Amino acid sequence: MRTAAIVGIGQVAVKEHWETSLRDLAYQSIKEAAKDAGVDNIDALYIGNMLGGELSGQEHLGALISDYCGFNGIEAVRVEAASASGGAALRQGFLSVASGAQDIAVVCGVEQMTDVLQDKVTTGLSLGLDSEYELASGISSTALFAMLTKRYIHEGCCTPEDLAAFCVNAQKNGVGNQYAMFRREVTAEAVLKSPVVADPIRALECPPVCDGAAAVVLAPVETEGNHNQNHDCKYECDTPVKITGSAVATDSIGLDNRKDPLVFESVKKSTQNALAMASKKQEDIDFYELHDLFPIAAALSLEASGFAKKGEGALLGRNGDIALDGTIPVTTMGGCKARGNPVGACGVYQAAEAALQLRGEAGKNQIECSTGMIQCIGGTAATAITHIMEV
Amino acid sequence: MRTAAIVGIGQVAVKEHWETSLRDLAYQSIKEAAKDAGVDNIDALYIGNMLGGELSGQEHLGALISDYCGFNGIEAVRVEAASASGGAALRQGFLSVASGAQDIAVVCGVEQMTDVLQDKVTTGLSLGLDSEYELASGISSTALFAMLTKRYIHEGCCTPEDLAAFCVNAQKNGVGNQYAMFRREVTAEAVLKSPVVADPIRALECPPVCDGAAAVVLAPVETEGNHNQNHDCKYECDTPVKITGSAVATDSIGLDNRKDPLVFESVKKSTQNALAMASKKQEDIDFYELHDLFPIAAALSLEASGFAKKGEGALLGRNGDIALDGTIPVTTMGGCKARGNPVGACGVYQAAEAALQLRGEAGKNQIECSTGMIQCIGGTAATAITHIMEV
Repeated sequence: MRTAAIVGIGQVAVKEHWETSLRDLAYQSIKEAAKDAGVDNIDALYIGNMLGGELSGQEHLGALISDYCGFNGIEAVRVEAASASGGAALRQGFLSVASGAQDIAVVCGVEQMTDVLQDKVTTGLSLGLDSEYELASGISSTALFAMLTKRYIHEGCCTPEDLAAFCVNAQKNGVGNQYAMFRREVTAEAVLKSPVVADPIRALECPPVCDGAAAVVLAPVETEGNHNQNHDCKYECDTPVKITGSAVATDSIGLDNRKDPLVFESVKKSTQNALAMASKKQEDIDFYELHDLFPIAAALSLEASGFAKKGEGALLGRNGDIALDGTIPVTTMGGCKARGNPVGACGVYQAAEAALQLRGEAGKNQIECSTGMIQCIGGTAATAITHIMEV
Repeated sequence: MRTAAIVGIGQVAVKEHWETSLRDLAYQSIKEAAKDAGVDNIDALYIGNMLGGELSGQEHLGALISDYCGFNGIEAVRVEAASASGGAALRQGFLSVASGAQDIAVVCGVEQMTDVLQDKVTTGLSLGLDSEYELASGISSTALFAMLTKRYIHEGCCTPEDLAAFCVNAQKNGVGNQYAMFRREVTAEAVLKSPVVADPIRALECPPVCDGAAAVVLAPVETEGNHNQNHDCKYECDTPVKITGSAVATDSIGLDNRKDPLVFESVKKSTQNALAMASKKQEDIDFYELHDLFPIAAALSLEASGFAKKGEGALLGRNGDIALDGTIPVTTMGGCKARGNPVGACGVYQAAEAALQLRGEAGKNQIECSTGMIQCIGGTAATAITHIMEV
């Protein structure tokens, strides 16, 4: 396969977009990304979205958004893997360009969640769980992560303060991200004094319900040579961000079926496969955009992906290793906690944010880097999708 | 890209599966396909499904079904393009294997629709339309196809009798398909006397609401050489059915935005691209599994794909050209009308049926063939996905 790179990015500010429809959010991000890449025509569009059918009454987002953007009859589909939908769309876009099937592909993650009442959102988000064996009992996604948190604390892996450190870090990084929903710092005390949502998870540990869309343009690094489409495979990008590793892995969808629920096997496997594909090791990774659905997800992801030993993921939060100047910076632009978690869009926001870091355009949040890893998880990490990006 | 082939197929009989869940339907088809291919382990799973979230309260079908089938942590995602979801999943599976990213992939289309009340199904099916500009006015998918039919008759392209011929042909072919929902012949008179559903479309012209699942195993034709996975890339298949053409195209999602609503531009474009990829012309195609959502869809697909001139698609029905012994047999195993239309599964049923024909295992419905074309459409052909298959 040839080398595919991100050559354009576009992000919509994450917030409550009550006056903007699903298609408009997608359009805005795609327009920005296409402008950034200097392309007018594209060959394929991959949409990452989880809840368009349930919350916006709209399936068939590939054709809809392609049409709305004025692309003329191109290949377009939607890819879904619960909260990992954005990463899943990125994976398909990557395969499409890397295989040579298409030359210029746009991957767009979009989600609109705030235009319906909260119970519908909570139910929607829980459709990524096992509906017959988990959801049917009345448990929600937040409740399952709460149970994981309890177990983690029970096993002596951390204190609530350690976990709060992930929120403090994310909110601090959100200040420097113009697209973030929450751009203010919080203290660990404030986190630990906020109301309990699902014991022991507190309000300030939950990602906000929000709307958003992000897009990236993918193209081959080598623009000379044979291409499939009639148009020239041209783009304008001083710093193409190469995707050198890409892997999807799954695990039992139900937490109850896992040998050790505190081990995210999907994260472990997809990280290993993506690193192997990129010929990299953990120590080569300069930053790690993990999927901080809740602090426990961040801690367990750090462990499963090999950046911390089992039971020691939260220590990286406590010790400041996850900060911008730490050994393994995470959620460098605010993550789910501060940027927000427009579910199916999250994986594409991660890609855009990592591209900003690797291009050296991350402003106040800039870290010194040449290789980054992004990863999103679906449900309680029944799916994990990892990409390695390099300049 | 290397050549990918279908090396195993599995189908569940299409009917009202009130006692079988979505995951069980998928499992049964995948088990059959894996057995047929002689494989135990696979590397990736692509699920084609439209309405799991709306009708079964279950998203995240990639991880769910992979888990339920006992595949150990493999790559798994769901792909959606309304009623073309099955074809969209086949396209991703094809790219995955042809690119060399994965060695053995299963594509499974699954849909469960009969376990809810009819109004929910009708609303669900209409989510493939433009929800803001079509659905919001109260129009359904059937109503839009009815308008197309009226216009087609108004322009003098056919009589209602001509269109009924597509149903007569499909039902006749359904008799020989053990997986078909309706295995009895109907006469044109019966079709034209059946109750009007959406004028001029009559009950016996509508595909039944039903449940079903079909799966195909994809693998490279050459099993020697470098492969990505640890297991041997081995399968047992006397007649691998090569996928030599694959193309997705889209059109305006709303009928009102099309220059000529009687021209399915997406079908035209995806057929042209798939044929070009396979280095084939229309006359090389021995049979054409088109997506007969309604008779008008069959007639317009025949025109757009170049098997009939504009306005003359229905003539192929009238003249018997679409019969098993005709010049361009369509819906050779019953199509949507007789086999049934488990929406997101349809494209994979088509692939399995075409494989049966090309292997010479189509029983009483066998036609002499070496090259077939399958095609599914999403919404009112806002998406069209075409594959060319050869032995």
